[in-house]
Amino acid sequence: MQNNPVHKNVDTSLKSVDTSPESSPRAIAQRWVDQLHRALTSATPASAAEVFETGGFWRDFVSFTWNLYTAEGHEEIASLAAATATSAQPEGWTLGEEPTTEDGVTTAWFDFETAVGRGQALVRIRDGLAWTLLTVLEDLRGFEEPTGRRRPQGVAHKIVKGRSTWLERRRAEEEAIGVTEEPFTLIVGGGQGGVGLAARLKHLDVPTLVVDRYDAPGDAWRNRYKSLHLHDPVWYDHLPYMKFPDTWPIFPSKDKVADWLKHYTDLMELNYWASTTCKNAQWDEAEQRWVVTLERDGEDIVLHPVHLIFALGVSGYPQVPEFPGQELFEGDQHHSSAHLGGEQYSGKKAVVIGSNNSAHDICASLWEHGADVTMVQRSSTHVSPSHSLRRLVLGPLYSEEAEENGIDTDKADRLFASWPYKVLPDVQRPAFEQMRQDDFDFYQSLEDVGFQLDFGEDGSGLFLKYLRRGSGYYIDVGASQLLIDKEIALAPGQVSHLTKNAVVLSDGTELPADLVVYATGFGSMNQWLADLISPEVAEKVGKCWGYGSGTTRDPGPWEGELRNMWKPTNVKNLWVHGGNLHQSRHYSKYLAMQIKARYEGLQTPVYGLQPSHHPS
Amino acid sequence: MQNNPVHKNVDTSLKSVDTSPESSPRAIAQRWVDQLHRALTSATPASAAEVFETGGFWRDFVSFTWNLYTAEGHEEIASLAAATATSAQPEGWTLGEEPTTEDGVTTAWFDFETAVGRGQALVRIRDGLAWTLLTVLEDLRGFEEPTGRRRPQGVAHKIVKGRSTWLERRRAEEEAIGVTEEPFTLIVGGGQGGVGLAARLKHLDVPTLVVDRYDAPGDAWRNRYKSLHLHDPVWYDHLPYMKFPDTWPIFPSKDKVADWLKHYTDLMELNYWASTTCKNAQWDEAEQRWVVTLERDGEDIVLHPVHLIFALGVSGYPQVPEFPGQELFEGDQHHSSAHLGGEQYSGKKAVVIGSNNSAHDICASLWEHGADVTMVQRSSTHVSPSHSLRRLVLGPLYSEEAEENGIDTDKADRLFASWPYKVLPDVQRPAFEQMRQDDFDFYQSLEDVGFQLDFGEDGSGLFLKYLRRGSGYYIDVGASQLLIDKEIALAPGQVSHLTKNAVVLSDGTELPADLVVYATGFGSMNQWLADLISPEVAEKVGKCWGYGSGTTRDPGPWEGELRNMWKPTNVKNLWVHGGNLHQSRHYSKYLAMQIKARYEGLQTPVYGLQPSHHPS
Repeated sequence: MQNNPVHKNVDTSLKSVDTSPESSPRAIAQRWVDQLHRALTSATPASAAEVFETGGFWRDFVSFTWNLYTAEGHEEIASLAAATATSAQPEGWTLGEEPTTEDGVTTAWFDFETAVGRGQALVRIRDGLAWTLLTVLEDLRGFEEPTGRRRPQGVAHKIVKGRSTWLERRRAEEEAIGVTEEPFTLIVGGGQGGVGLAARLKHLDVPTLVVDRYDAPGDAWRNRYKSLHLHDPVWYDHLPYMKFPDTWPIFPSKDKVADWLKHYTDLMELNYWASTTCKNAQWDEAEQRWVVTLERDGEDIVLHPVHLIFALGVSGYPQVPEFPGQELFEGDQHHSSAHLGGEQYSGKKAVVIGSNNSAHDICASLWEHGADVTMVQRSSTHVSPSHSLRRLVLGPLYSEEAEENGIDTDKADRLFASWPYKVLPDVQRPAFEQMRQDDFDFYQSLEDVGFQLDFGEDGSGLFLKYLRRGSGYYIDVGASQLLIDKEIALAPGQVSHLTKNAVVLSDGTELPADLVVYATGFGSMNQWLADLISPEVAEKVGKCWGYGSGTTRDPGPWEGELRNMWKPTNVKNLWVHGGNLHQSRHYSKYLAMQIKARYEGLQTPVYGLQPSHHPS
Repeated sequence: MQNNPVHKNVDTSLKSVDTSPESSPRAIAQRWVDQLHRALTSATPASAAEVFETGGFWRDFVSFTWNLYTAEGHEEIASLAAATATSAQPEGWTLGEEPTTEDGVTTAWFDFETAVGRGQALVRIRDGLAWTLLTVLEDLRGFEEPTGRRRPQGVAHKIVKGRSTWLERRRAEEEAIGVTEEPFTLIVGGGQGGVGLAARLKHLDVPTLVVDRYDAPGDAWRNRYKSLHLHDPVWYDHLPYMKFPDTWPIFPSKDKVADWLKHYTDLMELNYWASTTCKNAQWDEAEQRWVVTLERDGEDIVLHPVHLIFALGVSGYPQVPEFPGQELFEGDQHHSSAHLGGEQYSGKKAVVIGSNNSAHDICASLWEHGADVTMVQRSSTHVSPSHSLRRLVLGPLYSEEAEENGIDTDKADRLFASWPYKVLPDVQRPAFEQMRQDDFDFYQSLEDVGFQLDFGEDGSGLFLKYLRRGSGYYIDVGASQLLIDKEIALAPGQVSHLTKNAVVLSDGTELPADLVVYATGFGSMNQWLADLISPEVAEKVGKCWGYGSGTTRDPGPWEGELRNMWKPTNVKNLWVHGGNLHQSRHYSKYLAMQIKARYEGLQTPVYGLQPSHHPS
């Protein structure tokens, strides 16, 4: 997700290039990387900080730090370089595509080698110094992902007796894992996150099992209200290794996504146990492995994976606020996650408490089916019209046009990641300012009916709200117009209490109700850890998600990376994976390499392991 | 499938370009197309022949001719132009990628418009005149394939009451077709050909039903002998709209292909009736539709499609030769298509009659499982080592390297099709001459054990054998070495008769046998027509496959396109689809547009409908 300034920096197509030897983008980039290389291989690698601006950034995914880590400013960069250069052994920095300079910023891609693998770097240089550097581990040497030119042959063209077929090997693997063979990795949760990561691990030959409580892959989508569609466009949502078909709609329905996940699981040959719940997990210090109790089809099974990964989305349990009188209410009341759609509420009065994505979708669904609907807005909400979000924010990186400009999904993911979280608000803000202008009438109409709008506390818009708190916004796919047209009633305010047939607000407004839906969000992911392992372990891990921005629901201290996501936690061999489809695709790559390195017994010295924060 | 000369003509990457105004490739191409355009829009469009060499070629797929047709030489080109220019209304010829000139041949791509759609052209110009021109219909205007920038939105971002979901619509369609709604198109045969074509028609909104006798899509692969793998590499084999995953092996096993077809059928949302046989089809002249009797799960169902498409592979029934004494033979004897693998023949004596792909695979499978195997070679066979075929013939168009060079599957298909069948042997021959040199020792070793080798009657190699007769070759994936090592015995000669426990050759050689496999090929596809419709209709259609090269099993007269494949036949609304995965992908596009145009009631004047030949 990115806006135009980013795109400008990487569009190499039609720019006039200054080709004088000294000031050409290529010369600038080469000079810079030569300096970086000299510093990193010198007796004082900390001096690498000197090739950065004073307030420059070095973001690293696994290649130097065996962590997802952003060093900010000279001091942190010097520490990072000093601590990691000797073990990482970076060398062979080679320019990738032709560098460009625009608005004084030279953008360059490099390939490089480390002690254990191949890396890629993306740097932005101003006045000879790095403003931002992203370094990522691309592949572990000898354990590369078998894509493209590295596809397996599939069959040896030399015939020997006793060879087995693909089907025989596949069946043997399925029958063995979790039965006669322990998985090295157990992934709890088989949604988009779990299966995307399992696909990566599968192709890296790490014995992996996914368990999921639902009957089939994709059911977490399938079981939601029927009008649900992806709110992000299709180009942003691909899973690893297998793109959605060329003919897929931009916004597929939840059933189509669910079907895809089912097919994906099978086609990627994942070891996937459906109808299986994780009941308990304990670390066995003596054996250096987990003891995990699963219930599969009513039977308890104990497994001993070395690594345990929770891939349970972006949040914890449904959060239902407590209001006086809930026990008196005679109608239906349920959390948004349990809402199946408006069909059964035709002619009924419905009150939906909340004003984010689910609240809007559910209000619309109830209205469609003839309910009389009121949305209770308790706090301000950001609204991005879907088409504007696509055009202004996602389009430059994730769209048919981007692909035609040579920005494929991998490149887009890197470009997006190249902005440190400290800088990201400044990068995003202009797009949302543009949106505010372009959709002026729309926003005015919403405010005219009393809708409390915001663009984030610092005006940085939707995506930063998502990263900071995972809530606080609606991607408009039509419900806003229903609010504007007063087809859905809007009631601003706080809930005071419920009566047997109404929701009463603090100002005394009484909203008659046959149905109350609590579209009030979800708790933190480490609730799962507390329940499935122990409160102590949950406390040791701390809050998952948010990067310490100091904004609502994302309290400091500043961390600069999402807390505990896709990187080592403070609990040995315990990992948290999740996020939207984009994040599941992209970050599964780095998490899979971290696991693979441990599977192969490589040295993985973690730099900058973050302290735990906000345990509950 | 293509060799280096083709690749050279299109590689635009590093060529020095003569940019003088008159002789630049661009000027040559533009001048040529201006002349073509002037001729086609003049009062005498036949004069278009004058922009071709005397022996030049114009191959057209649907855009001018509503046929697959190759005009050869001035006279045929003049006829084509005269007959089609007025109705096709070609205009707006626009240069595509930068033309190149190499070895005196200027290669240029053009887009153009016709009365009903958008076309693409690929021309090779020598001394200002066209040597070869390919014109294809790319899209029907207003009925374009919904790919890429034309993806559907998926959901309207305006909420209205009573809207349905994707799942509801999909279920309603499945429940209606063949029950309350007649399919416009019935496809008999649900292998790669049937499902690829059905996917095209699905996305063009033509109501289509596929019926197949097996229990599930892919079973035609699944039910074969277990060691079967694709002999063509993965890049050549993609189906429409959804590529094999990036991690798929180069040569996937038959079970993996079978699984893919099953998932593909579901993901493409095809209306597919498994376990359904076509019993009879008759044309109803009064109603202008077919009356087709199907048996589905034991029940007869009569449907009335307007178009009937046979998609039954590349051949007809298994062909078992009659030898005296077959009734006396006490062991197992079956056709290669019924052979399930060597497992049950350990320690047995097996005689495999035939020396093409299946014969080699089956001999190897029997050997693997400990049988004592003899291959009876009755006539010479072409052998291409798989790796050499990939490197020399397919690689330049279908490979990871080709994709990196900007030759995606679509472009590769066009490049390949741009060589008329008259020229193709000359284009292919150098690659096979190279193979003969590169694999000299291999071929020598094969001949040393008595294997009768050939490279086609005119030295043009494997692919032309495939196009002419669909047989006569082995893509070596290891069995040749077993012959060389005498692990598989080779018996050249004709079969005289069988005894109760042996196969006896004409020279008196007696081959003891517990098993006889007849790897003796298949009959013509129009056997299906004779049985399912009538001998008269089969005769009216004539031979399917082969282009009249006058070589073995492909008798003249010359037609210059594969007989009756993917184009109108002499029987109204009866079509034949098939071929390997590559052909199923590529030609399904043109067949689907021919059907769609008729579905929409467009004028489709067929030029050059071929007479029927060789009815039995």
